[in-house]
Amino acid sequence: MKIAIAQQNYSVGDFGKNATKISKAIFEAKSQKADLVVFPEMSVCGSFPFDVLQKEDFLETTMQVLQRIATESYEIAVLIGCPTYCEDENETKVYDSAILIENGIITRRFNKKNLSHLESKYFLTDTEKNFFEWKNQKIAVCVGDDVPEEENGISLAINITAKQFKYKDSHFSDQFSKTQYPVICVNQVGANTERVFEGHSFVLNKNGEKILQLPYFTEDFVIFDTDKNYEPLAKEECNEIGLLHDALILGIQDYFSKNGFKTATLGLSGGIDSAVVLALAAEAIGSENIRVLLLPSEYSTSHSITDAEGLAKNLGVQYDIVPIKSIYNETLSALSPIFKDLPFSVAEENLQARIRGILLMALSNKFGNILLNTSNKSEVAVGYGTLYGDTNGSVSVLGDVYKTDVFKLARYINRGKEIIPEHTIIKPPSAELHPNQQDSDSLPNYDVLDAILYQYIECGKTQDEILKMGFEKDVVEKTLRLLKRCEFKRQQLCPAIRVSQKPFGEIQIPLIAKF
Amino acid sequence: MKIAIAQQNYSVGDFGKNATKISKAIFEAKSQKADLVVFPEMSVCGSFPFDVLQKEDFLETTMQVLQRIATESYEIAVLIGCPTYCEDENETKVYDSAILIENGIITRRFNKKNLSHLESKYFLTDTEKNFFEWKNQKIAVCVGDDVPEEENGISLAINITAKQFKYKDSHFSDQFSKTQYPVICVNQVGANTERVFEGHSFVLNKNGEKILQLPYFTEDFVIFDTDKNYEPLAKEECNEIGLLHDALILGIQDYFSKNGFKTATLGLSGGIDSAVVLALAAEAIGSENIRVLLLPSEYSTSHSITDAEGLAKNLGVQYDIVPIKSIYNETLSALSPIFKDLPFSVAEENLQARIRGILLMALSNKFGNILLNTSNKSEVAVGYGTLYGDTNGSVSVLGDVYKTDVFKLARYINRGKEIIPEHTIIKPPSAELHPNQQDSDSLPNYDVLDAILYQYIECGKTQDEILKMGFEKDVVEKTLRLLKRCEFKRQQLCPAIRVSQKPFGEIQIPLIAKF
Repeated sequence: MKIAIAQQNYSVGDFGKNATKISKAIFEAKSQKADLVVFPEMSVCGSFPFDVLQKEDFLETTMQVLQRIATESYEIAVLIGCPTYCEDENETKVYDSAILIENGIITRRFNKKNLSHLESKYFLTDTEKNFFEWKNQKIAVCVGDDVPEEENGISLAINITAKQFKYKDSHFSDQFSKTQYPVICVNQVGANTERVFEGHSFVLNKNGEKILQLPYFTEDFVIFDTDKNYEPLAKEECNEIGLLHDALILGIQDYFSKNGFKTATLGLSGGIDSAVVLALAAEAIGSENIRVLLLPSEYSTSHSITDAEGLAKNLGVQYDIVPIKSIYNETLSALSPIFKDLPFSVAEENLQARIRGILLMALSNKFGNILLNTSNKSEVAVGYGTLYGDTNGSVSVLGDVYKTDVFKLARYINRGKEIIPEHTIIKPPSAELHPNQQDSDSLPNYDVLDAILYQYIECGKTQDEILKMGFEKDVVEKTLRLLKRCEFKRQQLCPAIRVSQKPFGEIQIPLIAKF
Repeated sequence: MKIAIAQQNYSVGDFGKNATKISKAIFEAKSQKADLVVFPEMSVCGSFPFDVLQKEDFLETTMQVLQRIATESYEIAVLIGCPTYCEDENETKVYDSAILIENGIITRRFNKKNLSHLESKYFLTDTEKNFFEWKNQKIAVCVGDDVPEEENGISLAINITAKQFKYKDSHFSDQFSKTQYPVICVNQVGANTERVFEGHSFVLNKNGEKILQLPYFTEDFVIFDTDKNYEPLAKEECNEIGLLHDALILGIQDYFSKNGFKTATLGLSGGIDSAVVLALAAEAIGSENIRVLLLPSEYSTSHSITDAEGLAKNLGVQYDIVPIKSIYNETLSALSPIFKDLPFSVAEENLQARIRGILLMALSNKFGNILLNTSNKSEVAVGYGTLYGDTNGSVSVLGDVYKTDVFKLARYINRGKEIIPEHTIIKPPSAELHPNQQDSDSLPNYDVLDAILYQYIECGKTQDEILKMGFEKDVVEKTLRLLKRCEFKRQQLCPAIRVSQKPFGEIQIPLIAKF
C-alpha cells in the first residue's frame, strides 16, 4: 500500500488557496499511484481560526470546500483535517476532525480527544474509537496530541497534527515510540502570526525507529510504501539555534506573505536586538524590501551609528539617519510651562524612545513598510523597554527569545562571514537614554537574569525554589518584582513569534495583584 | 437560624487586607449572634488570580490565611470561598471551593462544577454532591454558576459567587427561581482591572421571590433570619445607564486604589469620549487628583478648546493647553529628506495623534498621573483610532462601551446640571486630523454602526444574517471588513473595564485570515 504524505502550509480562512494546494497534492498522489494521501490537522481552513470557528458561514464554507475535494478524490483515498459540525448540539460547537474520503465519498470522521485549553474553547471532545478497516488492514487514526487507540490487530497508525515549533523541544516522535505498529505522522508547516508549525513529518517502523523524515519549515510531498523495507535512519544531528533561526525566518516570511505585505522597517540602534531582527528580516523578505532608520539622540555613542551603518551596508539595506534632538528639544520646550525646572527623569528617557516610535510609524504609514518590533523576551519579562516606543511594531521577531539566545543567534547569523559587526555583539548592552547608561545599571547580568526568568516562567518554579538553587536573594526578588510589575506593558505588546515553551501570550499575571 | 451575608471587595493576592476584612465581618456576625456567616467565591485571595494560581506559594499562603480565619471562628460557622488543592493530582491543579468552618475547624469543602473557559484553565471540576446537615437542616451549597443539587429534604441553598456586571443583563436571580426552598446568594463586589463584580447579593424565599436585596457596587453586611417572616420585595426599578455609570466609576476607583495610584491624566479634545471619561474619573477619584492636557493642532476647531475648557472648569480640573503645531512641524521637517514632497496622508494624520500620545505619557512619567484611555468600543471595533496615539493608556474606561451608549452616559452625567457642555454632546463627532473631517466621512452613522456591531459581536450573527435584517449591503460589508482588519490594533489596546456581554478581551479574530 502506498501512502502519500502532504506536508503543507495553509493560511487561515484562505479556502481558495488551501484547496488548490490540496488538489495539487491529490493529483500528484494519484499520478504516483498512491492508495491514500494524508494531509495535516486543520488543512482545509488553516490553523488557528479562533472565534471565526464560531461563525456558521466559516464552517459551511469549510464543508463546501471539503465536498469539492471529495469529488476530486475518485480512485484514491484521502485523509484530511478540518473542523466539522457536531450535529447534536444547539450551539455552534465543532470537532477537530480527520475526514476519510474514499472514491469521492466522505465515509468516516475521526475526532480529536485531547484538546489544549485554547482548543477546548471551540471544540468538543469525543470518545469514539478511531480506526477503520481498509484493504484488509486495520488503521488507527489520531489527531494532534492524541495517541492511537489500544485495539487488537492494528497494522498502522496515522497521526495528523499541527504542531508548533518549540526551541529545545524536538522529541515529538517519542509519544509514538511505544506502539507496536508503524506510525505515520503528518504535520502542518508554516506560520500564522504567532504560531510556527514546524513540519518535520515522519514515519516510524513498528519498533519505534524513524524510517522516513520530512524536512523542518518547508513543504514536502513523500510517498511511503508499506510493502517496502526501510532501513532505520541515523539519529538526526540537531542544531537548536539553527532551528530557532529557521523558525523565526519562516515566521517573518509567512507574516508578510499571508498578510499581503511586502516591505518592512525598523529602528537600527547599533545594538544586538535590532541587528539580529534586521539580519533575519533581510533573509526572510529580502534586503531590497527593507528600509531602516537610524535615530541617534544626544546620548547615542558614536559607535552606535558606525555599528548600525556597518550592518546596513553588509546587508545592502537602505537606511536614513534622522537625529531626534531637534524634535526632543521642541517637545521639551512645549512642555516647559508644565515641567518647569524639574530634573531629568524617566519622562525624558521615555520621550526619546517614543519619538523614535513615531518616526518609525510615520515612515510605516507613508510607505506601507511594516514596523518590526525588536524587543526580546528578557526585556519584555522585566519591562526594560518604553511602552509606545520600544514596544511598537506589527509583529515581534524576538519577543519570545531570551537575550542570551539573541547573542547565540547573532553568532549563528555570522557563521559564514561577519554580517553583524563584531562590536555590536561584544559591547555591553545599553539603551543609551542617558549619558553612559548600561543595561547592567538597572538589571542583573543577562546570564543570571535569563536563568532566573527561565526557572520562573518556563519551569513554573516559585521564588523559594529558585532561591534554593543558589541565586542571590536580592537579584531573585528584584527580577520577580519587575516581572510582576510590568504585565501592563506585556499586554500592550504586539504579537510575538512563539518559539518557547511558555510564550507570554499563553500566561497571564493579574494586573492588580499584591502577590 | 441567623445567617450573615458579607458582600465584600477584595484585592487579588492582597491576603493581609482581605483577611482583615473577613475577620471584621466574622466579629460583627458574632456580636449580632449570627449562627453562620457567608463570604463570596474566592474571598481569601481575590478574583481573578490567573497564572499565579499555578504557583504553589500562592496556594500555600491561601491555606495559611484560611487556617488563621478558622481559628477565629469558634462559636460561629463560616462559609467562605477560596481555591484549594486537589490532593490526587500531580500537577498544581486546584478546585474553586466553598469551605465550611465550624467552631474553629475546617469541616467540609464544596467544589465548583460548572467552570467558565477561563476557569477551566486553572480549576478542576468535581462531581461530589454539595450539601451538609447542620442544626437539623439540610443545606445545599453551590459556587458561581452552579445550581443547587437535586436532593430530598433540602431546606436552604447557599450560592457564593463572583459575578461580573454586564450592561443590560440583570436577571441573575432567575437561575434560582425554580428551587423549592430559600436561596441565599452572596456575591463579590469591587473591580480588579477589567472585571467589575457587581455585588447585589440577595435572598429568595421558597417561591423564588426576592425578600432581601443588598446594593450594587458597594460593600454591605446583612443578617438574614430564617425564622423571621419577610415580605416579598417590590420589583426593582432598573436604570441600566445608571448601573453602567456606577460600574465604570467603581472600575476606575478600584483600579486606582488597588494599584496604589492617586492621580490621573487624559487628553481633553472637546469631543464626547474624553468628556465622559473625565466626568467619570472626576467622580471616581476626585477632580483635584486629575490634570488634563488640551492638545490642539492646526486642524482643531475653536469650539474644541472652548468645549474642553468649559468641561474642565465645570469640574474644577486643572488643565494646560499645549499646542502641538511646533512639534508636528519639527517632526515633518526631520522627515522631509524621506517624505520629500509626497502629499498629506494618513501618516500626517496619525502623527498628530501620536504627538498627543507622547505629551500625555511625558506628563504621566513626570508626575505619576495615570493615563486614562478614551477610546470607545465602536472605535475599537472598526479601528477608528491611531495606534500608539489614541490607543494609549493604562486602563480604558469606555473601551467596552458602544458610542451610542457614550451619548447616553453623557446625558446621564448631565442629569442634575450641565457638566459636559451641551455642544460637546450635539456636535458631529470628529477626529480633527485634517480640515473639516467628520467621523461620518469614513464610518456609517453610529446608530447603524453600533447596531451592526452589536449583532455581529454580542449576538454572534453572520454577515448573511445581518443582511437579512435589512441593513444596507455596502455598510454591513464595510463594517465587518474594518472589524476583521484591525484586530492588530485591538490586541495592543490597554485593558478595558468590561461591562458588555462580549468584551474584546474574550473574543479573538485571527490576525492572518482571509475570511
